[in-house]
Amino acid sequence: MRAVDMILKKKRGEAMSQPEIEALINGFVKGDVPDYQMAAWMMAVCFQGMNGEETAALTDVMVKSGETADLSTLSGIKVDKHSTGGVGDTTTLVIAPLVAACGGTVAKMSGRGLGHTGGTLDKLESVPGVSIELTMEQFLSIVRDTGLCVMGQTADLVPADKLMYALRDVTGTVSSIPLIASSVMSKKIASGADAIVLDVKTGSGAFMQTLPEARALAKTMVDIGSRMGRKTVAVITDMNQPLGMAVGNGLEVKEAIELLSGKLPKTDPLYEVSMLLASHMLVLSELASDEKEAKAKLAAALESGAGLRKLKAMLAALGGDTSCIDDPESLCAVREKRDVYLDEEGYIAAMQAEKIGVAAQLLGAGRATKADSIDPAVGLVMHKRQGMQVSKAEPVAALYINDATHVEDAIAALKAAITVSAEQPNAAPMVYDVITAAE
Amino acid sequence: MRAVDMILKKKRGEAMSQPEIEALINGFVKGDVPDYQMAAWMMAVCFQGMNGEETAALTDVMVKSGETADLSTLSGIKVDKHSTGGVGDTTTLVIAPLVAACGGTVAKMSGRGLGHTGGTLDKLESVPGVSIELTMEQFLSIVRDTGLCVMGQTADLVPADKLMYALRDVTGTVSSIPLIASSVMSKKIASGADAIVLDVKTGSGAFMQTLPEARALAKTMVDIGSRMGRKTVAVITDMNQPLGMAVGNGLEVKEAIELLSGKLPKTDPLYEVSMLLASHMLVLSELASDEKEAKAKLAAALESGAGLRKLKAMLAALGGDTSCIDDPESLCAVREKRDVYLDEEGYIAAMQAEKIGVAAQLLGAGRATKADSIDPAVGLVMHKRQGMQVSKAEPVAALYINDATHVEDAIAALKAAITVSAEQPNAAPMVYDVITAAE
Repeated sequence: MRAVDMILKKKRGEAMSQPEIEALINGFVKGDVPDYQMAAWMMAVCFQGMNGEETAALTDVMVKSGETADLSTLSGIKVDKHSTGGVGDTTTLVIAPLVAACGGTVAKMSGRGLGHTGGTLDKLESVPGVSIELTMEQFLSIVRDTGLCVMGQTADLVPADKLMYALRDVTGTVSSIPLIASSVMSKKIASGADAIVLDVKTGSGAFMQTLPEARALAKTMVDIGSRMGRKTVAVITDMNQPLGMAVGNGLEVKEAIELLSGKLPKTDPLYEVSMLLASHMLVLSELASDEKEAKAKLAAALESGAGLRKLKAMLAALGGDTSCIDDPESLCAVREKRDVYLDEEGYIAAMQAEKIGVAAQLLGAGRATKADSIDPAVGLVMHKRQGMQVSKAEPVAALYINDATHVEDAIAALKAAITVSAEQPNAAPMVYDVITAAE
Repeated sequence: MRAVDMILKKKRGEAMSQPEIEALINGFVKGDVPDYQMAAWMMAVCFQGMNGEETAALTDVMVKSGETADLSTLSGIKVDKHSTGGVGDTTTLVIAPLVAACGGTVAKMSGRGLGHTGGTLDKLESVPGVSIELTMEQFLSIVRDTGLCVMGQTADLVPADKLMYALRDVTGTVSSIPLIASSVMSKKIASGADAIVLDVKTGSGAFMQTLPEARALAKTMVDIGSRMGRKTVAVITDMNQPLGMAVGNGLEVKEAIELLSGKLPKTDPLYEVSMLLASHMLVLSELASDEKEAKAKLAAALESGAGLRKLKAMLAALGGDTSCIDDPESLCAVREKRDVYLDEEGYIAAMQAEKIGVAAQLLGAGRATKADSIDPAVGLVMHKRQGMQVSKAEPVAALYINDATHVEDAIAALKAAITVSAEQPNAAPMVYDVITAAE
């Protein structure tokens, strides 16, 4: 079948067979199917969608387009976690140590962030000395010794996704559930995980702004995992405001250290979401029979300091200076801190997480283009969350500044992100839904 | 606005502004907007469509992408006719001489056919000596002397359409009403016509297989013409069977000569459709006040032989041997003629015009690729139409053969095109609708 016939088939809304998907994607990776045909096909997918069988076949072909990580020399169930991306989301640095402390095996490959703040790799690199450019042998050795490791994705993992994503980015074909789901899941599966917990964000700061969209993406990803023999659970969590209070790289590592040191209350949203995600990781790892048992084990690992010790062990194995474990403030040493005050009084009715991310980016905490560098120490710390009371005398946030060039823009973005009302609003939920393969 | 933002805008179903369309199309023609972005945008257009204003703006930008023909040195209203393409459609060679004989000015640029049989240019070239590769001066001079001329489209006419069509062909984006309509109308308008009569075919042998599709295309083209200040009328005619009885190049010229010689009955479908189209051309040319007066003038021009003399004059001006006017049989001198009989008796319930076209192509009357050459003498002549009675003893068609290589395939295609029933079916109408700007 010619590529144009496959485009026409999808345009008519028909399902493509596995051999057709394989021929199209492999042809594209080899350069036999030109960009313009792939672009037309992906736009047709945006309108017509793909069924579960097609989406799983696409994911499988993408996985097979490159190398896959062989984690078979590691014992136990290898469990991974992925977030669709949000602001102030430091869960990986909390969860991976806690799950490892409970006997789990977390061998995680991560991409580099291109957004308001860095990705997990950027956050780790805010610890002096850390290198996440490891060989596969080094990576496996660290996991064997400590139970956890995070490394940069190897260059030859899922080349089809790199090529497709670059094309989607410039052809308006990013926002398609089967294309997003296959992109995420192909990387998770090629990374070698046996079990996958997905954190699908919804709200103003998320890619999926509405709950129905987030639920559809979550279901599609869980379905792909099940069809491909990976135990998969998705949790749908709120991204109408930053998850943690810190938005920045060193600042978020500091917050993770504080959480693992038992310094955050159990009602803290970062604590709550981290515990929920980690509990599903323990259950999928067959280290707890249900969420309740898992949460008790995780709380004990936090309480005893075992989680914090796991984080310290990983940082040490990555060549990092572990003095930050006792002195997390050292990760955010900046020239100037500035408090931000609102011009109104009342209650915080709503926040726009994305604008708060933009504020942090303007201070140097994130990249606008791949070539940009990140300042690990800068960013902001929120003092208030949605639903809380604010007065003109109390700062809503503190900025951590090294380069003051865009600081006024950052303050404006931050203020614009916050809506104040006279009435006390209901607090937004942190978790909306848990999607399992059974559904 | 970046190209990707324009793709996203169309993907969301929003209307694009004139400057946006201009930037996109001009960028594509210059090579600043790559094929993959244009392909994605055109696929989005296939799903979301374009409103009348957008479609006219697109047509205008396409017209301005290249040279336009200057017909201002010709007196009177220059009238053109375009058919969306069918099998056995020889109307141009009937209409142009009759309209010219009634005082009309027909300066027509034509593309070369890529299909079951040749286009008008190929048909003209079946007359020995004819050359349709004229300079603009030669073309205008012939129109001034004879009232009519058909020439090949100059290479620099509507380059945007050439580039867009080549991309649509390989990206599954051919079947979109605004893209089809702007492609047709941009060429008509760049060719300099003041008035345009469109023959939109519908049925098994047409690009628009259903009447609602044909009507939508017709309305869109008439709307473009009106918005761009050209008097435009569209006639929707049947293409469930070949229009004329002849399918081939020389064979169709012969049929046109016979019609202009008064040898076809007034009930003949080629006569009926030609007269209808020509009457609208005369009305738009302000040479008749209504269809009835126009038809009377056209019938008189046919009766007197004035139409046939106009055809002869044009052929002579193009360097052609005009002996065919008196001896049209000379245009289809072949090695072998073979009668085709059906294996059933009864009535012809339906025909598939496209398959009959394929039969003619297999005999050498049409091109499968641009590189193929056409044998001007070969093709077929149908003896029966839909609704007529057939017996096993009567041939349904005669094949005109020079190269017998694919003759069995041609016979099989022809037989497969015809459905016979025991009951006498209703005869299909020839004309479905006339679309004017007033609607």
